[in-house]
Amino acid sequence: MGKYNLENFFEDFEVGSTIKHLFSRTLTEGDNALYVALTGDRFPLYCSAEFAQKLGFRRELINDLLVFHTIFGKSVPDISSNAIANLGYADVRFLQPVYPGDTLSAESEIIGKKEPPGGQAGQVYVHTKGMNQHGKIVLQFYRWIKINKRFPEETTEPQGNVTPPPEIDLRHVQIPSALTQETIDPSITRGRWFFDDYTIGERIHHLDGRTIEESDHMMAANAYQNTAKVHFNGHQMANSRFGKRLIYGGYVISIARSLSFNGLENTLGILGWNSGTHINPTFGGDTLYAWSEVLDKINLPGIDHFGALRIGLATVKNLSLQKEQWQEIELKFVDPETEKEQYHPNAVLYLDYYILMPKK
Amino acid sequence: MGKYNLENFFEDFEVGSTIKHLFSRTLTEGDNALYVALTGDRFPLYCSAEFAQKLGFRRELINDLLVFHTIFGKSVPDISSNAIANLGYADVRFLQPVYPGDTLSAESEIIGKKEPPGGQAGQVYVHTKGMNQHGKIVLQFYRWIKINKRFPEETTEPQGNVTPPPEIDLRHVQIPSALTQETIDPSITRGRWFFDDYTIGERIHHLDGRTIEESDHMMAANAYQNTAKVHFNGHQMANSRFGKRLIYGGYVISIARSLSFNGLENTLGILGWNSGTHINPTFGGDTLYAWSEVLDKINLPGIDHFGALRIGLATVKNLSLQKEQWQEIELKFVDPETEKEQYHPNAVLYLDYYILMPKK
Amino acid sequence: MGKYNLENFFEDFEVGSTIKHLFSRTLTEGDNALYVALTGDRFPLYCSAEFAQKLGFRRELINDLLVFHTIFGKSVPDISSNAIANLGYADVRFLQPVYPGDTLSAESEIIGKKEPPGGQAGQVYVHTKGMNQHGKIVLQFYRWIKINKRFPEETTEPQGNVTPPPEIDLRHVQIPSALTQETIDPSITRGRWFFDDYTIGERIHHLDGRTIEESDHMMAANAYQNTAKVHFNGHQMANSRFGKRLIYGGYVISIARSLSFNGLENTLGILGWNSGTHINPTFGGDTLYAWSEVLDKINLPGIDHFGALRIGLATVKNLSLQKEQWQEIELKFVDPETEKEQYHPNAVLYLDYYILMPKK
Repeated sequence: MGKYNLENFFEDFEVGSTIKHLFSRTLTEGDNALYVALTGDRFPLYCSAEFAQKLGFRRELINDLLVFHTIFGKSVPDISSNAIANLGYADVRFLQPVYPGDTLSAESEIIGKKEPPGGQAGQVYVHTKGMNQHGKIVLQFYRWIKINKRFPEETTEPQGNVTPPPEIDLRHVQIPSALTQETIDPSITRGRWFFDDYTIGERIHHLDGRTIEESDHMMAANAYQNTAKVHFNGHQMANSRFGKRLIYGGYVISIARSLSFNGLENTLGILGWNSGTHINPTFGGDTLYAWSEVLDKINLPGIDHFGALRIGLATVKNLSLQKEQWQEIELKFVDPETEKEQYHPNAVLYLDYYILMPKK
Repeated sequence: MGKYNLENFFEDFEVGSTIKHLFSRTLTEGDNALYVALTGDRFPLYCSAEFAQKLGFRRELINDLLVFHTIFGKSVPDISSNAIANLGYADVRFLQPVYPGDTLSAESEIIGKKEPPGGQAGQVYVHTKGMNQHGKIVLQFYRWIKINKRFPEETTEPQGNVTPPPEIDLRHVQIPSALTQETIDPSITRGRWFFDDYTIGERIHHLDGRTIEESDHMMAANAYQNTAKVHFNGHQMANSRFGKRLIYGGYVISIARSLSFNGLENTLGILGWNSGTHINPTFGGDTLYAWSEVLDKINLPGIDHFGALRIGLATVKNLSLQKEQWQEIELKFVDPETEKEQYHPNAVLYLDYYILMPKK
Repeated sequence: MGKYNLENFFEDFEVGSTIKHLFSRTLTEGDNALYVALTGDRFPLYCSAEFAQKLGFRRELINDLLVFHTIFGKSVPDISSNAIANLGYADVRFLQPVYPGDTLSAESEIIGKKEPPGGQAGQVYVHTKGMNQHGKIVLQFYRWIKINKRFPEETTEPQGNVTPPPEIDLRHVQIPSALTQETIDPSITRGRWFFDDYTIGERIHHLDGRTIEESDHMMAANAYQNTAKVHFNGHQMANSRFGKRLIYGGYVISIARSLSFNGLENTLGILGWNSGTHINPTFGGDTLYAWSEVLDKINLPGIDHFGALRIGLATVKNLSLQKEQWQEIELKFVDPETEKEQYHPNAVLYLDYYILMPKK
């Protein structure tokens, strides 16, 4: 018997059980510096102690997405290393600020499973939580995956919760307590546009493009300790249907989010996201472009100084368009011939998420 | 109206006004570690707490050039994102040590502008300052750029200061106060050559060559939060006259400076520079080589333990020469046919700068 | 006379003398973060403050191999920049934990030399030590190199110690004092296999493969301040017999060690190694795979909670094999035709080393 890590098949997931993922991880200012270098992130909450302190935080925060990638990476060996497909993740919510020096651990509860009669694979639903060293939950999300069965001939009844969670209920979103104490200092918000300057339906062009090299995405996935072989093994992937390594979808989210700085400079952090749709794979050498759609504007109860914007962050690759034309691109549209919904062939990501935006 | 950042044209710069650049940045030991990894820098002032403390500093410093790139990067969106050409920068002076954990912000005063009659573009002169979290100026420099006019048919008189600053007056150079208190410990200077070992006119061969990959320079420019698209967008740059991404000139300075360790090991930091001439662009895959010329040796008034060397740091690319031949290369020479001054075709950079060098 | 660093030839090494290597280096949490990003390391001792503290350490440690590479890198300019061949290194022992913020310096004693009569080159044996800022030795190893003579016509008698050291005597291995005080908390060891689960002769397949890009290994060697030109100068190396840059062998060790996480998750650190054999060079674009052989299991006198495993870490490149076949590969075998011992053509490394492994 080889010493391979637990390779969970459909039958191995027990509804109601909780898997504590391997080892905790301390995120430091080294990780934040690396995150900036690998993504081009400029949001000041994560790279300016002064900015964060003026908002009431102890110091600059670990980037929200770095927290997400770290917790997600921890769950991969137990949950999805054996998955055929990542079907979705939803109700991603950031619940506590994470500071450089904090140590994060992760666990996942198996909340449901179902399988088609006679199928080779079934679906497993999990609820993953990330905790800091004080045991406080810093992040939670739901995920559902498709995974091979050991015994395709046997079929069991659905168990537990087997429906994707609904959209985030903003009453359950956590505004960092530092922010709610009227601590906001107007002099810190140097961007030009505030909550009231955004209009529902408006599209924001982020202008920049970013080419991704193989080194970039492998260093990023390494930094998140996500070692899925599709990202790292060029030798094996040469024989895959893609012929090359795939870029970790979370890194694509990070690049898109960093590109979104232009026009959303005053953003005070991510509250959570409803869903992230990874439309086409991204490869080394691809250039990403992004725009944002303002899907909704939400006044938060009892909070005067800022509100939430619901943003659709659309990302395409290798698509040269002028500023004017961007208004016209549809990421998703009905094909006039087939009458079916389909995505733009260059589309790679659509993230439906919520950000905090100060009022003037 | 799209949410694009201020795109300043010639007419938009008002002489006498000051632009506070977007957000401050905390530089950490993470940034210093990354700087070493991306440049190969070995000067101990930035990577040895012990070395720095023996000199009287609190701990190791943030690399001078990382301070420069960070402040310069902050100014790009407001000053030069719309520029046709960066005409020059001068009187770059480092005025305070920057420690890991310090937060830097930047502002630029518009000090002058002029335009040729009927021209499409004019020149704008700015004075940029970087401040730490205590409001102390850590870096200052002058810069002048060429920038398109909105209304080429209108011409205005020159305003303010429209001449490049003269060479640095070493009386205005700031010796870190930690260093002036006779704190220097002879045991820390382990390099073989000291102030008195250098001769005006001497050329120092730095021997090493360094090949730059696309990932390297993009990570570096990201780390400086300089997001100029020419460095990052391989997709658009494929259609430029270069056919590929350009490497940020500041990264070239950093590589050249790191190469210059061989033969200048005892250097205690950069005081400032008179000018940096970027002669030819550098691209991913190019290999840089550097040599230094000792332009001047300056005894600093009232300071016994070290002096200033004025150094011409010459950098070429893809040029295989033996040690002996390097003495003969001229970066700039008079073409015997045309009788015009011209640069060696492989030249990329000439930096005229001042370093502190201990005496024995 | 150019300002070149000391280029030591065979005659320049004086048996009994000690060379203090240039400048000390502070390793920070920035260096640890970068190490993870460049190698994919996941061992929790180096990336989880919580894990390390439960074992009795003050906080997470600087990765053992990063300590090795830093000390080794310091010794290169004085010892091996002029070497024709690195003949071997042995008796590598880690003697004190290194924490983020510690400053390391290095020195090498010349312990022996010998030369064949009339040969162009001789062998020099050195003993290198790394010290922290308190003067405590954190690492020691022996090394022997082949180096050109200035005067091939003269031959001297062997001097000093000219035999490689024997295998490590585990009585001289240092168990970190934090670990010996019964501080071990069983809840921290989340891997599935403990000391008693391993069998002498067993082979552990690490499954993952890792492709190395040029940027990756250059950033790593830069981070270790090892500036040997074979790793960095693509322009010159194009004319070498390899036609391209060579990857620093220490980085290959780091990648192999990081790959070895699968199946050795509970490892508590490296005690030392007997020898590291670099069989074939590794180049940018190569994909590394690794497996481990359990060579020995050693109970440490007076220590109940963990023992030492002697591991042979075998590394190959660009070799696609199924799990089952890996059991059969021989890194070293007798060629049936020539009856000579030879290595597998894809072999790159064999490291014979000792790790600490907790008991259940």
